[in-house]
Order: sequence, then C-alpha cells, then structure tokens
Amino acid sequence: MFTITGIGTLVTNDLTLERGNLGIIRNAALVVGDDGKINWTGEAVNLAVDLAADAIDVGGRTIIPGFVDSHTHLVFGGDRSDEFEARMSGTTYTAGGIRTTMTATRAATDNALVANARRLADEALRSGTTTLEVKSGYGLSVRDEARSLRAATTVSNETTFLGAHVVPPDTDTDKYVDLVCGEMLTQCAPHAKWIDVFCDRGAFDVDQARTILTAGARAGLGLRIHANQLQHGGGVQLGVELGAASCDHCSHLNDADISALAGTNGRTVATLLPTAELCTRSAFPDARRLIDAGVTVALASDCNPGSSYTTSMPLAISLAVLNMKMTCDEAVWAATAGGGAALRRTDIGTLQAGSQADFILLNAPSHVYLAYRPGVNLVDAVVRRGTCVVGALL
Amino acid sequence: MFTITGIGTLVTNDLTLERGNLGIIRNAALVVGDDGKINWTGEAVNLAVDLAADAIDVGGRTIIPGFVDSHTHLVFGGDRSDEFEARMSGTTYTAGGIRTTMTATRAATDNALVANARRLADEALRSGTTTLEVKSGYGLSVRDEARSLRAATTVSNETTFLGAHVVPPDTDTDKYVDLVCGEMLTQCAPHAKWIDVFCDRGAFDVDQARTILTAGARAGLGLRIHANQLQHGGGVQLGVELGAASCDHCSHLNDADISALAGTNGRTVATLLPTAELCTRSAFPDARRLIDAGVTVALASDCNPGSSYTTSMPLAISLAVLNMKMTCDEAVWAATAGGGAALRRTDIGTLQAGSQADFILLNAPSHVYLAYRPGVNLVDAVVRRGTCVVGALL
Repeated sequence: MFTITGIGTLVTNDLTLERGNLGIIRNAALVVGDDGKINWTGEAVNLAVDLAADAIDVGGRTIIPGFVDSHTHLVFGGDRSDEFEARMSGTTYTAGGIRTTMTATRAATDNALVANARRLADEALRSGTTTLEVKSGYGLSVRDEARSLRAATTVSNETTFLGAHVVPPDTDTDKYVDLVCGEMLTQCAPHAKWIDVFCDRGAFDVDQARTILTAGARAGLGLRIHANQLQHGGGVQLGVELGAASCDHCSHLNDADISALAGTNGRTVATLLPTAELCTRSAFPDARRLIDAGVTVALASDCNPGSSYTTSMPLAISLAVLNMKMTCDEAVWAATAGGGAALRRTDIGTLQAGSQADFILLNAPSHVYLAYRPGVNLVDAVVRRGTCVVGALL
Repeated sequence: MFTITGIGTLVTNDLTLERGNLGIIRNAALVVGDDGKINWTGEAVNLAVDLAADAIDVGGRTIIPGFVDSHTHLVFGGDRSDEFEARMSGTTYTAGGIRTTMTATRAATDNALVANARRLADEALRSGTTTLEVKSGYGLSVRDEARSLRAATTVSNETTFLGAHVVPPDTDTDKYVDLVCGEMLTQCAPHAKWIDVFCDRGAFDVDQARTILTAGARAGLGLRIHANQLQHGGGVQLGVELGAASCDHCSHLNDADISALAGTNGRTVATLLPTAELCTRSAFPDARRLIDAGVTVALASDCNPGSSYTTSMPLAISLAVLNMKMTCDEAVWAATAGGGAALRRTDIGTLQAGSQADFILLNAPSHVYLAYRPGVNLVDAVVRRGTCVVGALL
C-alpha cells in the first residue's frame, strides 16, 4: 500500500459523472492498495493523517489513468518500411499490403512473433499504455492464426481473433469464410476474448461479416468490427445490429450510421484511429459530429506495420484535438475511459476506489499538455496494477 | 578518440553531393577524434584494423547527424495552456497572444528565464537536437530583450535578436521601430549573432522590416525573417533582397516568391515549421512546390508557448512527410543539413571528416523510421561534440 500526494491535477473519469467528464480533482491524493487496486482518491486535505505521513509528493504534477489502447495488431513478422518509403515518394506498391505481412508472419517462428509483440507492448507501456487489445490477422491459416493468438496472449488478455482480416491469395472467398467460421474459429476461440472482421472494400462484405461475427458470438466471443474505414458501407449498421462492443475507424459515416451508434447509449463505441489517417494521408473521421450526436468515442493506435506503425496514444490525443477538433478533455477521456468502454470494462481507464491501479505520472500541470505539447514525452512514470513499471514516482 | 561500427545506415549529408542527397553509407563505421570532430566515415570494411579492434558495435542501427533546429523561441515566462485549451474548444481568447507571454517574461527573474530555456534545450537534446537557434522577442523593452538574449546565450551560440516580434501594447509603432533600431539594438547586438523581424499581418510591414534588418546588418548581425506565415505579403521578397539566411514559415507564397528563393541557389533557405500549422489548425506550406522549384528547405520546431509548444524535430519530420508530401530523405536532410544551411553552417548537420561530432543513434534500421513510426521515441543515444550526452551507445 502506498499513497501519492501533491497531485496538481488528478483525472479520475469518475463513472458517476456523464461520459466524457474527466472527474478532475485538483490538489489531490491517491491511495494504492496491496491488491494493486485504487483504494481512495480525493482532495489531499481529506486524506487520513496516517496515510499522509508516508506519502510520495509528486510536486503538482498530473496523474491520469493509463491509456487503454483498444485496437492494435502487434503480432506480425517483418515490417513494411520499403513500402512506406515508396508510398511517401508517390510510387504505388502493387505487391504491398497485408499480404506482404502475411508472408512474413507465416515465416516467423513463434518466438519471433512473441518477441515482436513484446517489443511493441513495452514501447507502448513507456508512453503510458497499460492495457492493449491485440488482434491476430496476419496468419490467415488455421495454424498461423492460432499461433498468432497464442503470441498475443503473452502480452494481453484482451485478444481478438481477426482471421477475417483479408482473404489470403489464391483462395476462394466463400471457402475462406467457411474456414474462418469452422476449424479456424475452433482452434482460435480458446485464445481469444473477441472476434473482429474487416468489413470494407477489398475485404469482407456485410453478409460475410454477419456470418463470421454470428459464428464468433456462438463460440462465446465478444464482437468488434473494422467498419467504414475506406468507404461508406454497412459495417457500422451491422456492428450496431449485432451489439458489437465497438465499430472501429468510422471514417465514412452518414446520418443513419451516427444515429444508430448514438442509439446504443454507449453500448457500441465508435473507436477512432487518427494515426491511421495520418499515416495514409487520408481525411480524419468527423469526431465532432459523433460526439455532438451523443456517440461514445474511443481513441486507439491501430498499431500495425502497414497503415499506422505507432504505439503512441499521446500522438493519437494530439491529433484528435489538433486535427479532429475534439477538446482536450474529450480526447483524454476517449484514450482512457473510452478505450475501457470499447472493451466493456470500467475497472481500467478510471481512477476510483476499486479501479485497477494503472496510471501515468505526467511531467505537466494538467492533462491539457498532452495536446498542447505534441511530440514531447511527458511520461515521468507508469504504474500498472500498483507497481511502478516505467520511470519513478519521486 | 573512439570508433563506431555496425552502423546499418549512416546518413552523412555529404556536401560534395547535391543538396537533399543524404550521402548514405550502409554497413558503415565512424571515427570520432579527441577534438570532438568526425575523423573518418566510410564502409566498415575499409576501416583501419587498429581502429576496428576497439570499436563500439551498434548492431545495424542507424546514425544520422544531430538535428539542427534553426527556429526556436525558448526564452519566455509562463505558458499559455489556458489559451490553448480554450482555442481548441472553439472559444476565442481576445486577451491572449504574444502580449500575454510578454507580461510573464517581464515578470520573470533572469534565473527563471535561464531555467526555462535550459529545460526546453535539454528536452530538445533528448529527442536529438544538438544545435538550437534561440530568439528573444517576449521582452519587447530594452532591458527585457537584452536579458532575454543573455539567457539565450546560456543554451546556444546561435542567438537571434527579435525585438521586432510585435509592437508592445500602448506603444506607437514608428517610435518602437526607432527604439528597436537604436538603443535596443545597441544593447542586444553584443549577445546576438542574428536579427529577425516578424513581417506579417499584426506585426511589422515590409518597410519597417527593411529598416530594422538593415540596421541589424550594419550592427554586424546576420539576417532572418518571419515571412508569409499568416497571409501573403512582401516578407519573402524582402528576405531575398537583403540576403537573409532564411525566410521562415513560407505558408503563403506565390510563383514570384518561389522563383526569388530558388534564384538564391540556397543562400536564402525556406524554413518550414509544420508543428506551427499543426498547433494552429492551419494549412501546411507547400513544401513539394518549393523543393521541385529548387528551393533549399529546412525544417524547424518554432518552439514557443503560443503556436507550437514542442521541441520535437522527429514530429516535424513526420509531419513533413505525412502532411507536406516531402520524401523521407528530403525531410531528414531538411532537419539536419537544411537547418545547418539556414544558419550558414556546414560543420553541423553533416557527418564527414571535419564535421562537429553531433549525431543520433536511432533504434531503427534506417532514417525512414522517423516518418514511418510517428510519435515513437527512436533515439537510443545522442552525441554532442564527441561526448555521449543522452542514452548510451552500447
């Protein structure tokens, strides 16, 4: 058990307040229990005298919940820097794309897949990410999807079966959908909490996505969907219809899509991935329209070697504010409690009695500096389950 | 003297090649002399046997010249996070702007100004910036400009007198121009290498800027100009006419401006500051048009508490590639040798025999990753004048 005082700004994301309200306490204190959970938060003046005596004073700095990155693809072989460089120079790379990574992933050993995922999870942790969702999706065979998910479980318990990322080369789409819903699901479900489908141009259509997600639900998996990234389509409507926890990307939405998301009262979250738009020189999703309509919005990194090779939630927050017109409060909420909502969890992304003690000490007087100081590393320390795992609290 | 081998990618910016060519050597080695200068660079197979014996092997990682950030405003009091937060929420802040920082700067002690500049210079160093230009410009009185420049000299020898940042409140513009060219210049010139003027809407017009820059040149200072940031105007043409080392911002240019810059054959550099556009939600300058016309382009951070509160040159590189369509090579050159050119120096921003031994060890197989992995800290070590001052080379 330990106590922190002198917290200039404490972001609690108090769940008794309305979504998006950071529940800020100024001049705050926080008590971490031996169970790795938050024991108490409040104004420092109200701290019990015996707890105050041994407290760590952080001198006016800021504490926020650890980032909850609810959309990553950390399990893969190789990378695509050559394709990136060529694309940035105006050359098109016809041989590129997800299939390049599929080949490298199939060629990688189990140990190499684990090492890559761990390298990126550690990198994410250094910038404040204490919970990561991790998808498969570069194996695209029964064997390679199953071992991708086993690798994912070494860095996260929020693992997602994404056998339906794309159809592998020289494969009949209908037969592949049958495989995903059959033997592949059987082999993968024991290692996964969620199932996801890339429902978009060049991937799976709405009917195929419905078949796959329905099969996943029958196998006991929660539902997520890559929807409306590349063009407008029926992905978001399908996600809402099936009660998915999150529709991810949401770059091309019409009024009916937004109404459908808003109508779920936050049960289906819109997860926005601004670093993917940055890295593909694409237009950002209209976050303002979503939030103003009452949709619950999360921010995530989409970390993958093709379209968003970053683990930085601080960058996602900066872009959300600077390019997507979210307020600083909205962006910080979306990267913490919003990510928790997209994983249907309230014990992470919050700092209340009972929350997992996952938090970030920022070298700044408030959370606003995450957007005000883009590109600057403000993370002085990261605590996960009550243990300081990055930097130091003093 | 020490030697580094196993450099997967070494960026030399070899000056015998055309501007923008990184002079890349693969599988390279580098020898640092006791004088803090580069002694030798080349392919590792050509390294003398006695030097190879004691070498530090960096295992295929990348070495690039330290970043040369040729445009910063590190000397100021307070910050403007409240203004930033309000602006991002759609509120306009009529009381804000440079004058807010002027008041805080005048109220700050000399020690506070030095501490602030040093804090930011240290932060910049951690992300790889080994040379910083530092401007005054928030004092706006003889006393406060002079002590701002004295503070600047504690972190840089590339200091710039920017008394002509804006006209202070309740001051007649003509009288202020006279002051800047008279007593203020006299007091400031001994602490400055350069003079700069903000020639734009709300600041100084072309005639006033010409008067001030001409006076600065007579006092022995090199010339720089804030030009064409907020709207189109005559700033760039004036900079070229007077032989300025750099025209900075260049967000609103016409064909004649671009021709004028190209006509200097690199003697007047166009310094682009993409983080300023990011932080003010403004359109990025057209880097592609400048480069294609033969203009020498530099990238800098514009670090200041109002419109670009970042020291991150890696972020500037990412934005240059992702938002301004520069190639990865062009962006890395602009942030290193380009910054050197904007300061009329070839001993920094390059890694050839005789260059200052200022360089960055990147945890990546090539410099491309600076753009490919936005928001990720790739800096494993920074060497300045031959001494490792951040991280470790091993």
